[in-house]
Amino acid sequence: MEVEILLARANRLINHGPVVLVTSQYKDKTNIVTLAWVTPVSHNPPLVAICIHKNHFSHELIKESKEFVINVPGEDLIEKVHACGTVSGREVDKFQKFGLTPIKAKKVSPPLIAECFAHLECKVEKIYPGGDHSIFLGEVVYVQVEEGLFSEFLDVEKVKTLHHLGANLYTTPARIIKVAD
Amino acid sequence: MEVEILLARANRLINHGPVVLVTSQYKDKTNIVTLAWVTPVSHNPPLVAICIHKNHFSHELIKESKEFVINVPGEDLIEKVHACGTVSGREVDKFQKFGLTPIKAKKVSPPLIAECFAHLECKVEKIYPGGDHSIFLGEVVYVQVEEGLFSEFLDVEKVKTLHHLGANLYTTPARIIKVAD
Repeated sequence: MEVEILLARANRLINHGPVVLVTSQYKDKTNIVTLAWVTPVSHNPPLVAICIHKNHFSHELIKESKEFVINVPGEDLIEKVHACGTVSGREVDKFQKFGLTPIKAKKVSPPLIAECFAHLECKVEKIYPGGDHSIFLGEVVYVQVEEGLFSEFLDVEKVKTLHHLGANLYTTPARIIKVAD
Repeated sequence: MEVEILLARANRLINHGPVVLVTSQYKDKTNIVTLAWVTPVSHNPPLVAICIHKNHFSHELIKESKEFVINVPGEDLIEKVHACGTVSGREVDKFQKFGLTPIKAKKVSPPLIAECFAHLECKVEKIYPGGDHSIFLGEVVYVQVEEGLFSEFLDVEKVKTLHHLGANLYTTPARIIKVAD
């Protein structure tokens, strides 16, 4: 079961730099794209930025619909995460092809990916030029996380996020280190 | 010894989401700020984005000088990384206070931090509004990495980067995982 968390804490699901699956929808088209180029931007309002190549299908869908969902996958999804980054949604339905389950979001139209452990629903605030990519600045409007994985912080000893080193190489967090204040 | 790497590969030093130390300089003022909200943005040209709170001293310096350096620290610097994120450079010289060594950059004015294992020198291309932060979009103009740590990819089994979970909690990469293509 997933539980809602404070919008002000949304950034702590992606603060340590995991790769994510971003879902988008416009009219009857839905897509999933694997993104490593994602960062929190602001606490108040709670903003995040995702960078998408200008030629990609998700770029087109999000530009039109002005909504997206950041789905955070665990290590168990590594093959699907990698595969979603290597084919175009113009040619295949990635939900179907990779056996991922779309479920209804609370506040936006794009579906959540049921197999991911956390979901940040976002509405696009601005689209900024960024070379061969665009920077989609989104306001987080709803956040939920699988129960037991987050209380103030993401417990990366219970759920291993994936971090993309480039090409087909990934890494995952080892232990949590606490620094004396 | 550090070796220059291709600008097109700069993104692979931060692609997996490590926390970084960003150095800045304007006139006789120099500063260091710890940032987790950093992402590559574009391959060609090679762009990166760093998000800095509007009230922070580094915001002021980078807005004026239009230059910054992303210094990537290893796990050994964890106490200094955390400390650089908790005091303001308006009040202290962080190089002096935390025993970090400034060395000359190749193509920009802000100093590199000698104790970090990789350095991305950047010139600001645009400054975009992002809620309570600004997004500094920078073009990477020179990159160097400690010899032996990078050949096409960052070897996170040899150098452990730091990933910020929030407050005083960090994590580091475990092993490298290769996905079949």
